[in-house]
This record gives sequence, structure tokens and C-alpha cells, in this order.
Amino acid sequence: MRLAFSLRFPITTSLRRFSSQESPLVNLRNTSKYVSIKPVTDLRTSSAAEFVASPNSKLQSLIWHTPLQNVLITKKPWTPTTREAMVEFITHIHDSYPEINIILQPDAAEEIAQDFTSPLNQDPSRPHVLYSGTTEEIVSRTDLLVTLGGDGTILHGVSMFGNNQVPPVLAFSLGTLGFLLPFDFKEYKGVFEKVIRSRAKCLHRTRLQCHFIKNGTTKPIVTHAMNDIFLHRGNSPHLANLDIFIDGEYLTRTIADGVTLSTPTGSTAYSLSAGGSIVSPLVPAILLTPICPRSLSFRPLILPHSSHIKIKVSSKMNQKNLSNVVNLSIDGVPQHDLQIGDEIHVINEVGTIYVDGTQLPTLAKNSNGEENQTLKKRESKNSGIYCVAKSENDWTRGINELLGFNSGFRFIRRSKDN
Amino acid sequence: MRLAFSLRFPITTSLRRFSSQESPLVNLRNTSKYVSIKPVTDLRTSSAAEFVASPNSKLQSLIWHTPLQNVLITKKPWTPTTREAMVEFITHIHDSYPEINIILQPDAAEEIAQDFTSPLNQDPSRPHVLYSGTTEEIVSRTDLLVTLGGDGTILHGVSMFGNNQVPPVLAFSLGTLGFLLPFDFKEYKGVFEKVIRSRAKCLHRTRLQCHFIKNGTTKPIVTHAMNDIFLHRGNSPHLANLDIFIDGEYLTRTIADGVTLSTPTGSTAYSLSAGGSIVSPLVPAILLTPICPRSLSFRPLILPHSSHIKIKVSSKMNQKNLSNVVNLSIDGVPQHDLQIGDEIHVINEVGTIYVDGTQLPTLAKNSNGEENQTLKKRESKNSGIYCVAKSENDWTRGINELLGFNSGFRFIRRSKDN
Amino acid sequence: MRLAFSLRFPITTSLRRFSSQESPLVNLRNTSKYVSIKPVTDLRTSSAAEFVASPNSKLQSLIWHTPLQNVLITKKPWTPTTREAMVEFITHIHDSYPEINIILQPDAAEEIAQDFTSPLNQDPSRPHVLYSGTTEEIVSRTDLLVTLGGDGTILHGVSMFGNNQVPPVLAFSLGTLGFLLPFDFKEYKGVFEKVIRSRAKCLHRTRLQCHFIKNGTTKPIVTHAMNDIFLHRGNSPHLANLDIFIDGEYLTRTIADGVTLSTPTGSTAYSLSAGGSIVSPLVPAILLTPICPRSLSFRPLILPHSSHIKIKVSSKMNQKNLSNVVNLSIDGVPQHDLQIGDEIHVINEVGTIYVDGTQLPTLAKNSNGEENQTLKKRESKNSGIYCVAKSENDWTRGINELLGFNSGFRFIRRSKDN
Amino acid sequence: MRLAFSLRFPITTSLRRFSSQESPLVNLRNTSKYVSIKPVTDLRTSSAAEFVASPNSKLQSLIWHTPLQNVLITKKPWTPTTREAMVEFITHIHDSYPEINIILQPDAAEEIAQDFTSPLNQDPSRPHVLYSGTTEEIVSRTDLLVTLGGDGTILHGVSMFGNNQVPPVLAFSLGTLGFLLPFDFKEYKGVFEKVIRSRAKCLHRTRLQCHFIKNGTTKPIVTHAMNDIFLHRGNSPHLANLDIFIDGEYLTRTIADGVTLSTPTGSTAYSLSAGGSIVSPLVPAILLTPICPRSLSFRPLILPHSSHIKIKVSSKMNQKNLSNVVNLSIDGVPQHDLQIGDEIHVINEVGTIYVDGTQLPTLAKNSNGEENQTLKKRESKNSGIYCVAKSENDWTRGINELLGFNSGFRFIRRSKDN
Repeated sequence: MRLAFSLRFPITTSLRRFSSQESPLVNLRNTSKYVSIKPVTDLRTSSAAEFVASPNSKLQSLIWHTPLQNVLITKKPWTPTTREAMVEFITHIHDSYPEINIILQPDAAEEIAQDFTSPLNQDPSRPHVLYSGTTEEIVSRTDLLVTLGGDGTILHGVSMFGNNQVPPVLAFSLGTLGFLLPFDFKEYKGVFEKVIRSRAKCLHRTRLQCHFIKNGTTKPIVTHAMNDIFLHRGNSPHLANLDIFIDGEYLTRTIADGVTLSTPTGSTAYSLSAGGSIVSPLVPAILLTPICPRSLSFRPLILPHSSHIKIKVSSKMNQKNLSNVVNLSIDGVPQHDLQIGDEIHVINEVGTIYVDGTQLPTLAKNSNGEENQTLKKRESKNSGIYCVAKSENDWTRGINELLGFNSGFRFIRRSKDN
Repeated sequence: MRLAFSLRFPITTSLRRFSSQESPLVNLRNTSKYVSIKPVTDLRTSSAAEFVASPNSKLQSLIWHTPLQNVLITKKPWTPTTREAMVEFITHIHDSYPEINIILQPDAAEEIAQDFTSPLNQDPSRPHVLYSGTTEEIVSRTDLLVTLGGDGTILHGVSMFGNNQVPPVLAFSLGTLGFLLPFDFKEYKGVFEKVIRSRAKCLHRTRLQCHFIKNGTTKPIVTHAMNDIFLHRGNSPHLANLDIFIDGEYLTRTIADGVTLSTPTGSTAYSLSAGGSIVSPLVPAILLTPICPRSLSFRPLILPHSSHIKIKVSSKMNQKNLSNVVNLSIDGVPQHDLQIGDEIHVINEVGTIYVDGTQLPTLAKNSNGEENQTLKKRESKNSGIYCVAKSENDWTRGINELLGFNSGFRFIRRSKDN
Repeated sequence: MRLAFSLRFPITTSLRRFSSQESPLVNLRNTSKYVSIKPVTDLRTSSAAEFVASPNSKLQSLIWHTPLQNVLITKKPWTPTTREAMVEFITHIHDSYPEINIILQPDAAEEIAQDFTSPLNQDPSRPHVLYSGTTEEIVSRTDLLVTLGGDGTILHGVSMFGNNQVPPVLAFSLGTLGFLLPFDFKEYKGVFEKVIRSRAKCLHRTRLQCHFIKNGTTKPIVTHAMNDIFLHRGNSPHLANLDIFIDGEYLTRTIADGVTLSTPTGSTAYSLSAGGSIVSPLVPAILLTPICPRSLSFRPLILPHSSHIKIKVSSKMNQKNLSNVVNLSIDGVPQHDLQIGDEIHVINEVGTIYVDGTQLPTLAKNSNGEENQTLKKRESKNSGIYCVAKSENDWTRGINELLGFNSGFRFIRRSKDN
Repeated sequence: MRLAFSLRFPITTSLRRFSSQESPLVNLRNTSKYVSIKPVTDLRTSSAAEFVASPNSKLQSLIWHTPLQNVLITKKPWTPTTREAMVEFITHIHDSYPEINIILQPDAAEEIAQDFTSPLNQDPSRPHVLYSGTTEEIVSRTDLLVTLGGDGTILHGVSMFGNNQVPPVLAFSLGTLGFLLPFDFKEYKGVFEKVIRSRAKCLHRTRLQCHFIKNGTTKPIVTHAMNDIFLHRGNSPHLANLDIFIDGEYLTRTIADGVTLSTPTGSTAYSLSAGGSIVSPLVPAILLTPICPRSLSFRPLILPHSSHIKIKVSSKMNQKNLSNVVNLSIDGVPQHDLQIGDEIHVINEVGTIYVDGTQLPTLAKNSNGEENQTLKKRESKNSGIYCVAKSENDWTRGINELLGFNSGFRFIRRSKDN
């Protein structure tokens, strides 16, 4: 059963928004005498932090009006280094901040429980308490998301929150640096102290919302992307034919391997490989970058983050073979296949301005429906993801340190000069 | 005094074909019996329009609380087509809107006067009245800027306003389309009526501010750019060595032909030729695009429009030849040469956030100085340039119609398909 | 034996619409009274043309020492236009050149037979004779390949010859122009007359040879590519990890969607979409172009056509999932999947120079084997594909007319100029 | 006569630091008692080496049928390191190979003479003998060119030979590596021994020939380029308008900063900065790369090395200002300015195939002239530059070690993988 669970885990939970398939907590085997796993529903519901602009800063101060209590920790796939780091981090929190509750996903709770070799320091009669439950239960209780791992761990942790508001993210790297610019795990004590004392600053990133509309249907499937949304022909020998519209205006038909829509955060992911510019996460924009287009002149575009972008799979003239499909991937995770006539609509999660006559057809029709409610909620002032930052200039340092940006040649002098 | 004036308006003085006309009005020869040229100082000072956001629109409505009165017309270099259009436009305004005053630059007033072959329609006893004066006088009286010509005419008209607030711009093309998306001149009657009746909508564009700081001096020369600011080695056989800082953080040293900083408006100008992305004017950003860099990995950058970018001319190791210079151009117009140690600071005209310790040194020192006053004024809510727009989607249409964007091959079908 | 044959012709078998017709001739239904289909084995074996360099020309004169007799015609998928053109062409040949024999693939022969509505002009008592047979039989009899259609038709026609010498190619387009630069079908009479009278000139193109070596095996599968050979991750969410060697020297490991190796002919196909340069078919070179690489600095490479390029699918560190595959496509047609450890070796069909110690391991082992014989034969002076050319400068005209190469903006004048 | 000479060697005269030394030898001050400077005219005229292809090698063996005698050494600008290396190298040659004569340029001879602090080892009664003279005299006596320095030193040394055959080149680096792939100076003893014993192998590089034709004149100025020939607008605010023809066929008009024509050797110089591909020196090709073109679709071109490329400076429509000029640079050294109507013709030094009707007009007219003789001589089988190579794979290693080619990101794992 654990096997089935972990197989189903990383991809599917981020897809089906809140798949009800998470097993009841009662199934957790607790084999460690030093750990007690309790239902996350015992905790109060999550408490939103406030983010306050500061003079002379491009970041927001992270302020807890209600004290921080519930911390969800996610990790990269099980390695000895990760296990050790997680035990060390939890032990430190339990020792130093007894008011803080640690939440783990069921599989992580069960596995890490084996690794605790001693009870609480301040009261050896009591075990470490970990909280767990279904994804939906965890999401509704989490005040802060801590990730241990690289960019993939952050993307996965964030994807747990699906179409809900994501809590502030505090990311630690265990060796591999990443472009989401985590802290070195060695600094965890000082950093966590700053966060809990409302002395940390955050960089605001926003996600894209992808509305997938099956040809002829009225109810879209909505998914969020922190990095990118792309359509690609995949294994098909035929190039994709995609009609692209911006704010209801026809832009172009591209005949290409595909096309990617990225956040500035994702500008260093697939868009970069496809030739896109590097965009600071502080720029409110959506990147439209073609993937191997059959054209000399499809320069990448940087669109306003208020854009409403529609991409429709079109048929070629004389195309007899209707079985061609285009694959949709979100943050690198394969999703649905699109057939001719299917379309995606992409907007930023902070909301868009629908130019007259270009609303999502499905939104108008389902005016009291669940999707609409969800979308309205998103447009609150705190939408987007606040990531605890090291300094004002993490990004500038990052592109230098991580990407090999503008690396010089090892011989510098040009012909005339020597 | 003229000297001081021209120091503050480096753009206009470097446009030589327009510069010598700042002669006193008394020098104007008025050889036409149908035209009377009067001093622009007879008119009231300019009256700012208000710009109001609308639901379902990415544009702002242009509202005249004080009625529009003073219209400055600039034109492209003298061609028969332009002369005819200008006479037709002025005649129409004088006939239909007697309350509107037409302002021209002295040389334009003098030249066009020859072309009027009849007096006012509604009162044949009276001539057409044109207003003119020095650039400073004109700038202080203009409510609306009308341009007849292509993109260059718009850039020139805007450059007249130098470091001052630019009035709303209504641009007409006479044949050549341009990327600043003017109206076809054939539509001038309807469009002008919409503008004067507060029924027009505007696209907001912003300029960059370039502070040129001579090595060791404290008073920068400030110039505004609607398209771009670039440093280039020009005729030098030596590549430029430029150190780039963002918000006080060292980004990189580039060894290159040069580097360009562009507005989104300028993303289709030099930056495009150098490999930059196409950026919607609605994206608040600054483009940093290298020009033929000696590196495989200097991908163009899109920075927040709140960035403070410093570029300093550096010396190469072992460089004995200190005479190397780098040329500074603003909107394609050559400016100063930079020597080793000189630097430029670039920010957006709507203001920046100076991260602690990174203020312009000169601003701190001259805290009560004239430059600072000018800069403060710029940061008012109406800074930037409001351009009367044809529709919500001018830009999307423009990149399709003007750039040959994503043009397909003339044979479409790929190998497998035929 | 037919099975072995089709194994050696992976291209044709994967083009399903042509594959099943290699049925014995006896199965052909001949339903037309005006057409008689005879076995191609009745014809003499093919007779090689000679190609002679001319002064002041970059082309070769096509000289028939033994008169041209056997003409194979291939066509694009059945459209009314193609059927009409084929009947017209065959009728003209039978009328004007009774010594010429027309060869068709079995399915084409059977289908086109319905379309003849009259007997031979010069002898109404006799039907049109068409020759057909298995692909192997056709290949061994063909003196000249005529194609009716676009680039895809040429690629398909050429692929019939698999690892054998390809006869001269005379290509006619029926509407769609193509980058392989066919003649307009309207000119077919004059052009064919020139060809048969040894007055035509040819452009020499060469193919790549792809040796696919399954991990641990010793017998490669060899396939020829007129355009390109590419490896791509296809539907896999994981980037491909490919180690690239040139002449036995390690070049680099690329983490990418894939990599393409192209002939100059194929420089306008997939390589162009992936960012490669446009290469004249007269340049003896192999293009190595990465497809969306995870690097800022993998500039496309142009290698000598004498290169021996090896690409090996490598495993990532810590990669638990061994099921990842990379897809191999040749001229756009999907071939084998590659697993970790599999490799391809690519050389030009005119032969390579194996630097000491870098021979294909399989070649050494099978020193008397069939593959080796085939490869040796390829290295004769006539290897490569001679395509009848319109003029010296077809290519220069083609990139202008077909690709929209260097299309100007629709507004030309730059800022300073108007 | 010196004037005529320097006119025929535009490259050297523009390198000012070397130019003034073409003074008669009598002017040399010889202030060292350990050195004697003698006229290079005392030596026999140069003796051509032979270059022989080897099986399993892409290089040519360098064979001296007449023993190597006269070695010209050029160096990078005077640094202590260079002086020491030069003295060490000369001392070693004089000690170990008394039959070898060392040739230096006059200024180098004069300067280095100060640095010798002892006489010949094998006969303390005799000084070191150095030979010198005018460039023309040196060129006619040199069997082998040895360079001490980086790529610039090689380019300069080669440029001394102007339009004459260049002797084999043996290049040593003194710290800075270069893309012309010199040997480390530490290896000089073994490498020189291999060269003199006919056991070295060479890589064959070829130069471009640039014929500059002033509007209306008939006698071109011919210059050779090892890296590249480029036209650039330099300091002009106006983009260059250039009409490009290939083999007499009009290719395109580019409106751009300029355009570069490069050898494969020069593919890693300016062409790389402008976006060109990296081309192996073994590919016989000419690269045509635009510099910041005003077009989305001017992809770099790779043309056959037999191409005859003409670029003509054209006037823009309505261009009143005829004073615009375009700068011509060869191997980074500024040459003539081109006015409207001027043109350059570029071919490879190994010769071209002039398609009918496209000969250089001046060649036809001056059929018995000096230039023609020079050009004819160039087309001998030994034209081009043979550079002593370290191994078969210098180039593959070089792009890895020198360019930072395909450098990975410092975090490798993609989102899904951690």
C-alpha cells in the first residue's frame, strides 16, 4: 500500500487539486517509540501573515499578527542527507520553540519516525509529536511551508496547495543550489528565528493559472504553475499547429514543437532553453516563448501579467489525420493531451483584465459555480507566493553564481591587443 | 541664458536640424498675407489632462477638466506630403474649433506660412494665427502634442520636452507606419474630435532617465529616453569594457561592442536588432541587452522598472592606452563620449527604489539643487507619456503587421506530410 | 528474404502508406484496358550516369553514356492534381520517348491505371505499359528518379533507395514550393528533354549515415538521412542526457530536449527551428544543433563532413529510473528508441577518416560482413545525390523566396531619419 | 619605393607599433656586445615545405625537402615574460641547431639585443647573430614563422606576409591561451625538434581575400584576412545599407550595424559575438553573419569557400546626406571607409569559381597586371596557412577549454528530479 501511495504521490496530487484519495491517518504505522503522530485536524486553522512594503527595499517584511504556529515541512526524495537534516531541524524546533507544531505529509511522517533516536530534550518522558492528515487537511492548517531540497522540492511543496493560497515559503538547500534561491541549510537556526520574530523579508512571486477547456465543454480544469505551462508535440512526428490569442486579439499561428508560457520565476527553466530572456521575478509579466518554431521570426514575447492568453490546437489544411495530439505540461509535469479544438486560457493568479467580449466562456456560464468562487478568492491582495529572501539582490547574485551567465572566454584579449 | 537652456536639453541641441530655430520670434519673417505668427507667450500656460482607468480596459481615458486649448504640431522633415497635411490639419482646426490655438516651432511656422493660400473660412478678413516662441516657451504652453510623420517625428516631438512632463501625444502617420502605432492621417477629423471631447483612450509609456556622471564630478547631466540608451565602442578597434551594477550589486563585466538599456517601447528598436525579446509597453520593465558580447552566455535581461542600473567604463588589465572612449547614444542620437571611470546611472522616470547605500552620489550632495527638484517633479502620478490609442490591441496588431513577426515559410508542409 | 530486406530499410517500412505494397506483382489488379503492368524485372539493370565538372560552374553536367531508359516516378499522396499530372507526364513520355520505360511502385501503378482513358497515341492498338515490382527490384532497375510533389515526396523517393546509391533526381512541384528546389511542373517537357539529351546540370547533395548500436551488440542498424538525424526526449518529462564525441574526442554532455545532426540540405529543416545557421548544400559539413539545451552556451556547431560523431545516451547521477528513453528520428520519421548505453555513430555517406582507435567497433569485428561491403560501395566517387538544378543560384534564390529570409520591417526609417 | 610597398601592405601599416621599423638596417643601433645584427639579405631565399596527407589523420605532415634554415620570430608587445622567453628560445636554437638562422623585425632585434648577457655557448668568442631587414626582405627569406604570444601575435605575424604565401606557423603561448591553439611555451624544445625533423603535423587554415573597389575605379586594393572582414557603421548614427550578392546573384539588402565575413578560424571571433555558429577550421566555408540587423529573420549563413561575395554600400531612398560612411576592418584592424557606391569583393585565397559574367571587373581589365599575377600565384596547391598542431583534436578540446562552451548550470537537476 505504501508503494501504491508513493507512486501516486508527487504528480497526481498536484494535478487533481485535492484528490480525496489520501488515506485516513489511522492507517499510519507508528513504529518509533520516540515519535507520536497526531491528526493535523487537532491544530487551529492557518493564520495568514501580513506582508508590508519597506522604504529602500524591493522586498516585503513578513509580519505575524497571530503568532506562527503550524509549520509544514516537505523534503526531496529520501536520501540519508535529507533524513538527517529533517531530524535535526525538527529536533531544534521542538527544543527551542515548543509552541510550534510540525506538520508532515503521511508518508514523510511515517518514514522519518524511524529516524528519531531520542525523546524531547526538555522532557525525556515525552515523544516528538508530528501532525499529519490528508492534503486538504494539511493545506487548511499550514502557516509556513519549509522545504528541504532544491527547486523541485519547492515546486512540489507549492503544488500541494493547488488552487489555494500558498503560505510563505522558507526554502533550504541541501547541497544543490537552485534558482529559487534557497538558504544554505547550515543557516537554518538564525533564519528560522528571524522568520518567527517577524524580522524576515520576502520576495513576491506569482503563479500562472491554466484553464484547460476540452472542445465543446463548459467546465475548465484549472491548474497553477510556478514556473511554466507548455504545449509540446511530444512523440508525434507532426509539428503542433497552435493559434495564439492575446486579450481576444489573434496574434499568430505557430507551427512548432510547441510553445511555453512562463512566469518570470520560470524564465530560467524551459523558456531559457528555448531561447527566452532572463526576467527578474519582480517584473509583472508573462513570457511567451516558442519551442523550435518553423519560422525565422518568432522572437520571444514578454506580455503584461494582466494578459489573458488563449492557445487553441488548430487543424492543418488538408489534414486527414485527426488523431494528432499536443501534450500539456505544468511545471514539468505531464497533464492532459489536447486534441484539435481544445484550448487553454492562461492568466496570472493575481487576476486579469478581461477586455470586453473575451471572458472565459465557462466563467460566464457558471456564474455561481465553484470555479468562480475559487478564482475570486485568488484575487485577494495576498495572492502569489512570498518566499523568504536572503538579501535585496539574491536574483542578481543568483544568475551570476548559478547560470554561468556571461562567462568570459578563458583568453580575454582580442586580436589587436597582444 | 540660452547656453544654460541648451545644457538642460541635450537631446534637442544634438538634433541639429531643429536646433538653430530657438531664435527670438522677432526674427521670423512672415511673408504670407494669410498667416499671422504671434508669440506663444500670449497663451495661457499648459493645462494637464487627467487619465482615468476604465473597467475591462488596459488603457486610460483622457479627460480634459480644463478645456483643451493649445496644440503643438511637429512634423517630419519637409516633404510636399507633410506640408499639405499640415495645412489641411490647421485649416480644419481653425474652421471647426476656433477656440483651439495652434503652436509651431519657429522654423515650421515660418515655412508653412508660405503654403496657406486663403484666409480663415469663417471670416475671410482674418488670417490664420499661428503661435511660436522658444522651446522653453512652447513647452510651458502646450496641452497636446500632435505629430505628423513616423516614429522619428514622435521621438523628436517628445524630446522637445526634455526633462519636463510630456503632454498627451496624438500621432498621425503619413504613409510610413511605425511601431509607435500612429493613426492614419485620413482619420484625423474623427480622432481629433474624440480627443477634444474627452472620449479618447491612451496607452501609458514611460521613459528612462540617464544620469551621465563624468569621472570625479558631482553634477550629472540628465537626459530622457523614450526608446533606448546605449553605450557602443563606435569606431574604436577595442571592445568596450563595461561594469554593470543593478541596485548596487555587481552584475557582470561585459567585453562587447556595447550594451543597450531600453524601455518596452524601445524593445522593437536597437534591442531587437541585438537579439532582445519583444516587450509589451504595458510591462513595467527595463531591458538590458548586450551588443555583440564576447561571451556565449550573456542572455538579454528584463529588469524591474524600479531598478537602478549603473554602467561604468572600466580599464582592461595591462591597458596602457587610456584614450579609448565609449559613445553614449540616446534614442539614436549621439551624446557624450565616456572615458575610463565615467559612468551612467539609469532609472525609470516614474521613480526608483534606491536600495540602502546606492543612491546617486550626486543627489545626496546636491540635496537642495535644481536637478533634484526636477527629478522629484517627475515622480508625480502623471509622469510618463500618454499616447492616444486606436484600440486595446494596437500592440498585438502592430507586431504582426509591422515586424513580419513569425512569418511562415512559403511552403508549409513538412517532410512527412506530402 | 523479404523480411530481411525490409529490416534493412527502416525508412520505407515506417512510412506505412507505402509499405504494404511490396506484394508480388501477380497480385496487382489491372482493371484498365488502356494500361498493362509488367514486371520491372523485364528491364535491364540500372545504368549509372556520369557527373562532369564544368568551368565557371558549381554544378556538374549530367552525362548518359548508356542512354537513359528506366524512369521511376514517385508522387505525393493521392490528390486529383497529382493524378492528372502523373497521367500527363507518363502520356508525354510514352508519346515522345518510346524507348523510355516508366516504373511505378505497385500501389501507384494499380491506382493510376484507372486514370488512363486512352491507349498510346502512336499505336491505338497498344496500351500504356507500366513496370513495377518489389522495392528491391525497382531500386536495381532505376536510372532516374522523377518526383511529383514537394520536399516530402523527394525525401520519400530517396528513402526507397535506403543504403544503396540513389539515381539522379528530377523533382517537380505541384503548387507547393519546397526547399529542395524543384522545377515547376509546367516546365516538365523542356526539362525532361534536357535531362535525356545530357544537357542538364546537377547539384550534388550528400546524405548522413546513422549507425545505431544497441548497448552491448555488435551489429549496427544503418540508415541514411537526406535532411537530419535527431535524438529527442519526446514524451518523457526528463531531459535527455547525451554524451557527444567527435573523432573519438569527448566534446560535451548535453542535458537537453535533444540534439540534431543535419546535412547542409537539412539546415533549413529542424536545425533551423532549433536555431542553427543556414548552410549552402555546397559546403561539405555536418551540423550539430542542440534542441532546447539546459545551457546558455551551447552554440550550434558546423563540423567537417569527414567527422565521425558518436552520441551516447548517458545516465544521470542518482538516476533510479532506468526506463527513460530517447527517440531517434531520421528525416522526420520515428525510428528506434534509445536506452541508456545505446549509441549512434554518424558519418557522411561519402566516407570519413577514422582517427586511430576510433573505428566503429562493429566494423572491425565484421570485417567480411555484408554491412561493410555496403559501406565500402558507398565511398565510390558517385555517392551522394545528384539533383537536377534550375540554375547556378537556385539556393540563393530559394532562401529569399521561401524562407522570408531577412524580411524588412514594413517601416524602414529609423528614429533619426524622419 | 617604400611608399609603394606600404601601399601594398595595408595591414602592417595600420599596426602602428610595428610600422616605422622598415628603416634601412644601417640605422639599427647595436648596443650589445653579445649580439650581432646582420642583413637578412645574406640568407638564401625561403624554401617551401611540403604538406602530405596521412591515413587516419585530418592533418598534413610537414616535410622539409630542403632543410629548414630561416626562422622568423615575432612576439607580442614587450613584456618581461616575452623578453625572457625570446632570449631563452634564441639561445636554445643557437646552441642546439647552429645551422638555423634567426630573423627578427628591426625593432625586435634592436630591443632584444640588450637582453643577451652571454655569448654563444659553444664558442664564447662569438656573439649571437640575428638577421633583420625590411618586411619585404624578411618575407622573401622566411622558412618558418614562430610566434610568442596569443592569437593577436599570430594574426600580426601572418599579416606581415600580406598577399604573399605564408610559411608554416609554429605558435607558442606565454600564459594566455588562444583560439588559434598555440603550444605551451614550456614544450618548445620538443616541439621545435619535431618540426625540424619533419615529424610535425599541421592544420590547414585558409584566409579570405578582400578586394576593395572604390566607386568608379578599376584597381582594387587587396588585403588578406585570417579571421574576418567586416563592414560597420562605427560612429555613424545611421544604420548601414548594404546590398549583398553571392556569385553574381542578389541575396538581400541588409539595414544593420554591419555585416561580417569570416573564415572558420574567425568563427570564434567577431562572428561569434554577432550570433554566428562555431565552425571547424576543416570546413571549407565562408561565414556571413549580420551585425545587429534591422530584421527578425537574417539568420547567419554558411557559404561554400568557392563563393564570390560582393557587398555594395547602397543609398537609402530619400537619403539626402551622402556623407555617410561604412568602416571596413580586417582582422580587427580599421582599413578604408566606404562611401555610397563603393564595394568589396571577397573570395577565399585558394581561389574561387567565377560564375559566368561575375568576374571582378578589375581583373578582366588588368589582365596582364601585377595584382592578377599575385592572385594567380595564390591559387597554387600550397596556399593557405599551415599551423603546427598539437593533436588531431585540438579544436574539439579548444572550444571546451577556451569558450566555456555548453557550460552547465551549477544546479543540474530539473524540477521533477529532486
